[in-house]
Amino acid sequence: MPHNLGIRVASSRLASTFDESCSWGSTPDGGMNRLSLNNDDKRVREWLIEQCKQLGCSVKVDQMGNIFAIRPGKNNSIPPIGMGSHLDTQPAGGKYDGIVGVLSALEVLRTLHDNQVETYAPVALIDWTNEEGARFPPAMLSSGVWGGAFTLEHGHSRSDASGNTVKSELERIGFLGDVPCSYEANPLSAHFEIHIEQGPALEAENLRIGVVTGVQAMNWYNIVLRGREQHCGTTPMNMRADTLLCAAKMIQSINQQSLALPGARASVAVINSSPQSINTLSGRVQFNIGARASSDALLATLDVNLEKACKEVVEDSVRLDESIMGKSGEGGVKMEVWEKIWECPKTVFDERAVSMVRESAREVEGGRFKDMVSGAGHDSVYTARKVPTAMIFIRCKAGISHNPAEFSKQEDIDAGANVLLGALLRYDDYLKEKTAA
Amino acid sequence: MPHNLGIRVASSRLASTFDESCSWGSTPDGGMNRLSLNNDDKRVREWLIEQCKQLGCSVKVDQMGNIFAIRPGKNNSIPPIGMGSHLDTQPAGGKYDGIVGVLSALEVLRTLHDNQVETYAPVALIDWTNEEGARFPPAMLSSGVWGGAFTLEHGHSRSDASGNTVKSELERIGFLGDVPCSYEANPLSAHFEIHIEQGPALEAENLRIGVVTGVQAMNWYNIVLRGREQHCGTTPMNMRADTLLCAAKMIQSINQQSLALPGARASVAVINSSPQSINTLSGRVQFNIGARASSDALLATLDVNLEKACKEVVEDSVRLDESIMGKSGEGGVKMEVWEKIWECPKTVFDERAVSMVRESAREVEGGRFKDMVSGAGHDSVYTARKVPTAMIFIRCKAGISHNPAEFSKQEDIDAGANVLLGALLRYDDYLKEKTAA
Repeated sequence: MPHNLGIRVASSRLASTFDESCSWGSTPDGGMNRLSLNNDDKRVREWLIEQCKQLGCSVKVDQMGNIFAIRPGKNNSIPPIGMGSHLDTQPAGGKYDGIVGVLSALEVLRTLHDNQVETYAPVALIDWTNEEGARFPPAMLSSGVWGGAFTLEHGHSRSDASGNTVKSELERIGFLGDVPCSYEANPLSAHFEIHIEQGPALEAENLRIGVVTGVQAMNWYNIVLRGREQHCGTTPMNMRADTLLCAAKMIQSINQQSLALPGARASVAVINSSPQSINTLSGRVQFNIGARASSDALLATLDVNLEKACKEVVEDSVRLDESIMGKSGEGGVKMEVWEKIWECPKTVFDERAVSMVRESAREVEGGRFKDMVSGAGHDSVYTARKVPTAMIFIRCKAGISHNPAEFSKQEDIDAGANVLLGALLRYDDYLKEKTAA
Repeated sequence: MPHNLGIRVASSRLASTFDESCSWGSTPDGGMNRLSLNNDDKRVREWLIEQCKQLGCSVKVDQMGNIFAIRPGKNNSIPPIGMGSHLDTQPAGGKYDGIVGVLSALEVLRTLHDNQVETYAPVALIDWTNEEGARFPPAMLSSGVWGGAFTLEHGHSRSDASGNTVKSELERIGFLGDVPCSYEANPLSAHFEIHIEQGPALEAENLRIGVVTGVQAMNWYNIVLRGREQHCGTTPMNMRADTLLCAAKMIQSINQQSLALPGARASVAVINSSPQSINTLSGRVQFNIGARASSDALLATLDVNLEKACKEVVEDSVRLDESIMGKSGEGGVKMEVWEKIWECPKTVFDERAVSMVRESAREVEGGRFKDMVSGAGHDSVYTARKVPTAMIFIRCKAGISHNPAEFSKQEDIDAGANVLLGALLRYDDYLKEKTAA
């Protein structure tokens, strides 16, 4: 039988692996809070390494704390085929985002082990550090360093709200490895990733599996506004430089700009105002915009429109203020910072890798799957810059993600893991043929 | 000469007292950060007590940490005439708000001392605890307990953002006194207060002094919205329950509601969203509204309009969500909390006390003053519930307050202190005549 195709993952073992590993970071509402490099992340990493070692894998940890657990093949002179995702979560996240990818990869390794399958190439399970970017923005930080999108220094120096850096936290939890974090020094042959869809499309069409052909383009922005701290009781309404009111107008305008461009999405999820006093108008407001679009050209249009719309809000404020206050008002609310803190163009996955996912999905699901573009970024965006990459989406409930209510059925996870197994073995056959040729 | 009216405060001493006492809590930008009951507040309180003791005052500290420094009179069987304000500031406040009131009162005591004036009634300088409410909302907390607006338990249990209570912080800095905090147990005969205007009216008319006849009506609100935490990249724009977007719409609508009612003011200065993740729509947003109006009736109208406007925003969200998501969406963004956390009706000050301020202003300023209604709340709002109360406003630059740029000229402060001295002596004469009669 070609490709060892008769073998299947063990559903009940995969299910119990979720129960076991999600004990670190679970929250009473059924969700997860396992921010990157916290103590729960440390514990689940140690657990993961132990599981892989039991299967005879060797384990490497790189300078960004990325874990590579490698199961040897027949020809260990070629780089391993990677199966990666992440074990960190949002602060109020679910049990599936990222976790499905790593635990399915572990189940694939166990299935190969049980069936004594010797692959041609070595196979690597990868846990990428800080995919969420929730603790240390931006997202996909460590696959980004590996893929050359960020320097190691940039990766190490990212810090959380308390000022702890990635490097200091890696040291603290014992995961500052010495393997260089780069494709060139520590290569893969390919990268496959299962992930929950995080959207409603598969559920709407009653499908378990999506074959992901690429990822939409993304920008993140940081904005700081400065107005005047003024007494809320005594300052006439028309003499105010009300920073939070300007921010509120921008948030609405950002929403309208994205609604006006089909295929674009933009929103503000983080806002901070100071001083925090009911009786004093805020004089400084910081917020972030997350913007996405189905093409680089559309994102470029959205980029221009967002900046224009936000600048119009401050120009209105300045005009109004100067007409009433003259120079004494110092010109209303100003935009102190308009900064693009992250840019990620549209990703198109490798045609061969995608076709192997598609073939595997056809075998496992009998044709019941669809091709999709991912709305979210994933570690595969950065691996795709260096090696053939493809992704498998599985259905999730109501498209809900980054939320304790995030949920995927076990049968859908099983289907995804079996598609991953089939894609991996197909890619292994391809490498064998290519090397022989 | 009636009323000891020839005497005047010492300008240079009053000026140097500012320099001396503002060393605790001053910020590099020329402002102050002396949040109630912090270590700087402790030090300035200790300094104040020392200054008053040097003048022969006895000092009482009550259960809310209010300091009463009492200079004896001829007849110590009647309650002292109070001169009070506060030494705490906003987190990014100025050197004048509250501080002018306490330091002018100290200068009045020193002037009485220098001129060996024996008043008929005793005279009390009062430093009221936590007037700003910036660290422990609401404002005017401890004059409020003294005046019966709040219970002692309420006052003691207010907490800051770190969970420290007023009581524990009073204990920590050694200012949890044992004098009962109430008018009944520790009465005054009257209360006079100097304060900076915190508005632009006196400057606009080139006047130093305002005679304050009352304080506008005020409400504070706490609002909590609950939407859905959703992935910002994958969730279609029309399937979102975007909590921060709803809050932004409300902030704009609150602004519009207050603009629509001349004499009303409403604004949002505090907002907090969670989780703080660029990639996850916030599922919980908390904010506060501060609302004021020139009459109780107008504030009641504003109250109805604000609640209606904000409820319309959530109703729109619920309608939209249910039309797209059905029951699975759980109904869009909801208003979990709409709570009035502070209500303070319009205050009208005592006619006799106000007339004595007016007479004193006429003597000091030769008729160059105006009657005014205060836009801000002050400790005098709560003393007015129990004893004849009046206030003196002094001019400040550009109406700026709650800001490091807050500024009043020394000559304006001197004028205010002399008006206070004259009003105090007039009220003392009135008490003497009244007791004799």
